[in-house]
Amino acid sequence: MLRAISKQTMDHRGPDFAEVGLTAIAGMKTIFKTKQRVFIYPSSGTGAWEAALVNTLAEGDKVVMYETGHFATQWKKMASKLGIDAEFIEGDWRSGADADRIEARLRQDTGHEIKAVCVVHNETSTGSVSPIAEVRRAIDAAGHPALLMVDTISGLASIDFQFDTWGVDVAVSGSQKGLMLPPGLSFNAVSDKAFELSKTGGMRRSYWDWQDMDAINGSGYFPYTPGTNMLYGLNEAIAMLHEEGLDNVFARHQRHGAATRSAVRHWGLEVLCRQQGQESGVLTAVLMPEGHSADAFRATTLQHYDISLGNGLSKVADRVFRIGHLGDFNDLTLAGTLTGVELGLRKSGVPHTEGGVAAAMAVLETTQFDTVAAE
Amino acid sequence: MLRAISKQTMDHRGPDFAEVGLTAIAGMKTIFKTKQRVFIYPSSGTGAWEAALVNTLAEGDKVVMYETGHFATQWKKMASKLGIDAEFIEGDWRSGADADRIEARLRQDTGHEIKAVCVVHNETSTGSVSPIAEVRRAIDAAGHPALLMVDTISGLASIDFQFDTWGVDVAVSGSQKGLMLPPGLSFNAVSDKAFELSKTGGMRRSYWDWQDMDAINGSGYFPYTPGTNMLYGLNEAIAMLHEEGLDNVFARHQRHGAATRSAVRHWGLEVLCRQQGQESGVLTAVLMPEGHSADAFRATTLQHYDISLGNGLSKVADRVFRIGHLGDFNDLTLAGTLTGVELGLRKSGVPHTEGGVAAAMAVLETTQFDTVAAE
Amino acid sequence: MLRAISKQTMDHRGPDFAEVGLTAIAGMKTIFKTKQRVFIYPSSGTGAWEAALVNTLAEGDKVVMYETGHFATQWKKMASKLGIDAEFIEGDWRSGADADRIEARLRQDTGHEIKAVCVVHNETSTGSVSPIAEVRRAIDAAGHPALLMVDTISGLASIDFQFDTWGVDVAVSGSQKGLMLPPGLSFNAVSDKAFELSKTGGMRRSYWDWQDMDAINGSGYFPYTPGTNMLYGLNEAIAMLHEEGLDNVFARHQRHGAATRSAVRHWGLEVLCRQQGQESGVLTAVLMPEGHSADAFRATTLQHYDISLGNGLSKVADRVFRIGHLGDFNDLTLAGTLTGVELGLRKSGVPHTEGGVAAAMAVLETTQFDTVAAE
Amino acid sequence: MLRAISKQTMDHRGPDFAEVGLTAIAGMKTIFKTKQRVFIYPSSGTGAWEAALVNTLAEGDKVVMYETGHFATQWKKMASKLGIDAEFIEGDWRSGADADRIEARLRQDTGHEIKAVCVVHNETSTGSVSPIAEVRRAIDAAGHPALLMVDTISGLASIDFQFDTWGVDVAVSGSQKGLMLPPGLSFNAVSDKAFELSKTGGMRRSYWDWQDMDAINGSGYFPYTPGTNMLYGLNEAIAMLHEEGLDNVFARHQRHGAATRSAVRHWGLEVLCRQQGQESGVLTAVLMPEGHSADAFRATTLQHYDISLGNGLSKVADRVFRIGHLGDFNDLTLAGTLTGVELGLRKSGVPHTEGGVAAAMAVLETTQFDTVAAE
Repeated sequence: MLRAISKQTMDHRGPDFAEVGLTAIAGMKTIFKTKQRVFIYPSSGTGAWEAALVNTLAEGDKVVMYETGHFATQWKKMASKLGIDAEFIEGDWRSGADADRIEARLRQDTGHEIKAVCVVHNETSTGSVSPIAEVRRAIDAAGHPALLMVDTISGLASIDFQFDTWGVDVAVSGSQKGLMLPPGLSFNAVSDKAFELSKTGGMRRSYWDWQDMDAINGSGYFPYTPGTNMLYGLNEAIAMLHEEGLDNVFARHQRHGAATRSAVRHWGLEVLCRQQGQESGVLTAVLMPEGHSADAFRATTLQHYDISLGNGLSKVADRVFRIGHLGDFNDLTLAGTLTGVELGLRKSGVPHTEGGVAAAMAVLETTQFDTVAAE
Repeated sequence: MLRAISKQTMDHRGPDFAEVGLTAIAGMKTIFKTKQRVFIYPSSGTGAWEAALVNTLAEGDKVVMYETGHFATQWKKMASKLGIDAEFIEGDWRSGADADRIEARLRQDTGHEIKAVCVVHNETSTGSVSPIAEVRRAIDAAGHPALLMVDTISGLASIDFQFDTWGVDVAVSGSQKGLMLPPGLSFNAVSDKAFELSKTGGMRRSYWDWQDMDAINGSGYFPYTPGTNMLYGLNEAIAMLHEEGLDNVFARHQRHGAATRSAVRHWGLEVLCRQQGQESGVLTAVLMPEGHSADAFRATTLQHYDISLGNGLSKVADRVFRIGHLGDFNDLTLAGTLTGVELGLRKSGVPHTEGGVAAAMAVLETTQFDTVAAE
Repeated sequence: MLRAISKQTMDHRGPDFAEVGLTAIAGMKTIFKTKQRVFIYPSSGTGAWEAALVNTLAEGDKVVMYETGHFATQWKKMASKLGIDAEFIEGDWRSGADADRIEARLRQDTGHEIKAVCVVHNETSTGSVSPIAEVRRAIDAAGHPALLMVDTISGLASIDFQFDTWGVDVAVSGSQKGLMLPPGLSFNAVSDKAFELSKTGGMRRSYWDWQDMDAINGSGYFPYTPGTNMLYGLNEAIAMLHEEGLDNVFARHQRHGAATRSAVRHWGLEVLCRQQGQESGVLTAVLMPEGHSADAFRATTLQHYDISLGNGLSKVADRVFRIGHLGDFNDLTLAGTLTGVELGLRKSGVPHTEGGVAAAMAVLETTQFDTVAAE
Repeated sequence: MLRAISKQTMDHRGPDFAEVGLTAIAGMKTIFKTKQRVFIYPSSGTGAWEAALVNTLAEGDKVVMYETGHFATQWKKMASKLGIDAEFIEGDWRSGADADRIEARLRQDTGHEIKAVCVVHNETSTGSVSPIAEVRRAIDAAGHPALLMVDTISGLASIDFQFDTWGVDVAVSGSQKGLMLPPGLSFNAVSDKAFELSKTGGMRRSYWDWQDMDAINGSGYFPYTPGTNMLYGLNEAIAMLHEEGLDNVFARHQRHGAATRSAVRHWGLEVLCRQQGQESGVLTAVLMPEGHSADAFRATTLQHYDISLGNGLSKVADRVFRIGHLGDFNDLTLAGTLTGVELGLRKSGVPHTEGGVAAAMAVLETTQFDTVAAE
């Protein structure tokens, strides 16, 4: 895809551009699994968070957000900065959103003051995945009209996401994770319900305005200069994902997650996510034993084994490290990564049982899967 | 630069990123010619328009904008969408902003209700350049405290721009014109005065917030995912501009503009910009003779000579075509372009005097300049 | 194609390579217009000259070569170095090979001592094209069994070449001219007759041996490490040529040659090739007026107009300059180039009539052609 | 380097080329560790084998070659095809060349009929390294004037090679191994003695002729079209090697070789090279247990774990597989590779003791080295 991006920039108002734009929009619908709308912004994922909020919510509107971890917290900060009355359902950063607690909160809201429920799908800071379909059921069970808004910046195209089937109203994503591109494009998938609301609702806005986008996207063009070169890469990335088959991509990530957790447990360390079935296939956050600095360990591992592990963010700073297993990744890249972690544990004097890589290998061996025919 | 962009994306929170970020910010200050602040957004230039407005103006605030052409009009539309009371000083799309009229308007505003004067530096739709230093003098002569905000999206790095010397308060630019990159990065240069105002003023905002940027930019990092790969390219583009020497780059554009106008006049056609000294070095817009469609001419020229001319936008749709002479462009690229236009005129049956290319050549010949030593 | 070349190198013995190899060999047959054999070497074109000679000729064998210019002379030097008795039919460097003189020479050779006739198709040093089909007819008319060997390094894929129809026995070419690639691949097209001869004949050889190539090429592999990355680019170049249509590619070059000559004559200068119908569509060599140095003129033009003109080689050193019009070139690139030449003539004080570019434009205008449907 | 290769091709006769050529030649001297001559060919490594032979040997000349494996055998075949009387000192493909046997053979040759001793430095088919300095001492001890010619195609820039200190006369190498480039460039390092001999000796030759190269290389140019784009990449590769430091590069390869052998022995398999101290740091060939097909194992490993292992060539076909650990390779890439092998052994039902990866990790851990300051 990096090669695609380096092609000569074309005129985004010229006749040849339409195909690029139409292909990108149609392609992103297949990735979000929606027949409704997708908008593409030249911005990083944070911009698409803002777009989701300003198109649907007015200043003073109440929303419920679920504290899954650092990124949920950041999104809440943004909402507050934009004047939204954002209420957090507190979490312990060790699981995805709890649909029952959401349902309970909505049932209290008999006046339907809550305009939206905002959940992070794959919480990058903790490696926990929220059960989006259950959250939808919870909202419906409560008979509540709130919109369901989901951040799937790091989940999309790595973990199954079904915008239409799950009844999501606004999904937020970006180019630099499962789509394997540099940062620079962001996305909103938008339900008809949310789009209708945005016609008269939302805040004053211009760059992020869905209506302006929608008025011209049908022809393959954009209301202002799009990220032309990134769109070249996006179209190549989407084609590549379908060539492998989305289900194969998802299965690959699940399998690598399972193997990674097996290594972690063998080492005698604890996976941060403690809700079974909610562990991420994209990354695994690991708790350091008491008395050991995760950041010192990360520095040692980087220096000696040239492997860059993710750091613990805010509440879990220096207490966790994160092992990524996303994007263009195979069994052997994983084995290399886990070897680096095990060597780093030894070098750092972190107590652990040797043999985590072998444990992971055993999982890889038994879960060897036959890829299904790609779409 | 396209090759630089295709390098592997690095971790924007990792230790190696700081140098990339610091180099980009410091480099952009040399391009804007400012010792004050520059902020870099992962967005297209339109985003930086929005950033300029939302950081300094509140809903209902009054601003005066100058109707230089299509892009000034678009910026005004954005201001209105954001709830700003934007007043247009009407123009005829054939010159840059008239500093005297701005001064007159400000003198009327004895209550200092006008919070900002917004001017487009190089109006891409007309090929006219506004005299920014004069506008500053006009504001000062009127003794008015309004901010001076300037869109130099298509001017920066092609036409001289002196943020500090000219006393600009907020400048807006983008990556895809004089910086010769794909679209995807945008910029605000910000005066201390405007930055102070933004601390307590402006609208509710998050993605575009200068304060969040400023709080972390000093270390070379950004408050959210930056356009990492584009920053690689930006640093290469800035180095390349300084290698040629900014003054040489500006002189090259002026010379090509003069040669192009000489061709146009030889053909017997009219340059859209009729204010001497305000003609753009970046592009030349040309009026079609009555009874001839500019778009039909453009289509013919594209089909037969593989040259893509800019179209007339909104008010001048189908009445002008635009000849670009910006970026990585030399005498012979210009000669080729002008040949294409002349062949296209003939093919389209547009009355004209042959020999425009030769007339341009004569200008190139007599203005052959010695490049000054690069910085 | 440069982007294709930068793809990751694959294992040239692995299962995926076969398709790359088979596509390249089959593709080159469509470019040479042959159903016989094509061999691809990782070397520059000079290597393919050597391959042609050492596979078919023994030390002491007599060949007739035609002195069309510098490159014919170089090929003769190579033949001599390899121990071949190479006889030159002298030429004046101002036309292609004269088939009548070849026929006359062959008729004298009643003992059939001459083993091959070697002709340069497009002589890069002079801009003259030899009439290969006529040379074949001359050989046949003389009832002579000599092989016909043709260097079409700079002609192939720019000027029509019909290996089978014209009865060529060995053709030599390279990657860096009409195929628009960097140097690094060279080619031999080989007739069944020549291939049979090589089974028992030729010199001791290894790297260049056709038999070793032929033994394994059928499977898409090569007897030693091939130029893998260049083959990626080659396959893309061939596809691109067929997309435009070879006949359109040839017509484009002819048209640009005609326009260039028109400019040269308008200037009052002399085209080096004085045989009508043999002027090259790939480049035009121009004689400088007496008393003017071509190299001084070239230096001036490079310095002031950033245009790099070809130099006169050996016999015509400093007396001619060469204007290339090959590869990925359109009307406007040509106009730019000719403008540079005209400006350079003026700057250098070379007497000339102004208006050459306009003369070329007139030719372009009247010869505007409808591209035929591509294959 | 692949990015460097995709730069625009420059004129190889133009003024800017000289620096590219001079940098490449000077750089290759630092890699060969010679102050004598280096010639660069646009060809694959096989071409440089031929160049070594045809510049120094005449038809019928006697040479002694050492049968280290497949590539030594291929070089001998080439010598025979070129008419050289090549005698093999037979080897068992399980060690490098035996200097004592070479000395013994030379002592028999009292008439000094043997013109050269040809040895493969790193035999890619077996993973054995010949002790070149010892071979030199053996030749000297025998008081024999034969040239010492060494193929270091897969050794150079990965394993220490000291052309001058070791007294090599002709060394042969290529671009696609330790230099981490695509195939397409090959090299001869040439001693003054060999160069003198070539002035009057050797076979008829042209493309490979050292004298033609030498006559023009001093100015940075080449006698025919060089591999311009590959030279861009070469200059970048050389700079990168010196940035890491050649000694660090060599130590890295040795360490990975040692770790790999530790894994192999833990598995209970046999390393093909059985001469201690001659095991390659570039690759490790492993013998399959009796009754198991190495190729079936390789196919299984490729299919299930996406790892491409080298095959056994000719004499050891289907009996060995080869693990590469060269070029841009780190501890974790090695761990990934070895994991793939171990998983493949299990999947293929090849008897082995689990835990080879852990054994390799133990070696990596204890041999963790401090890189020395780069040159």
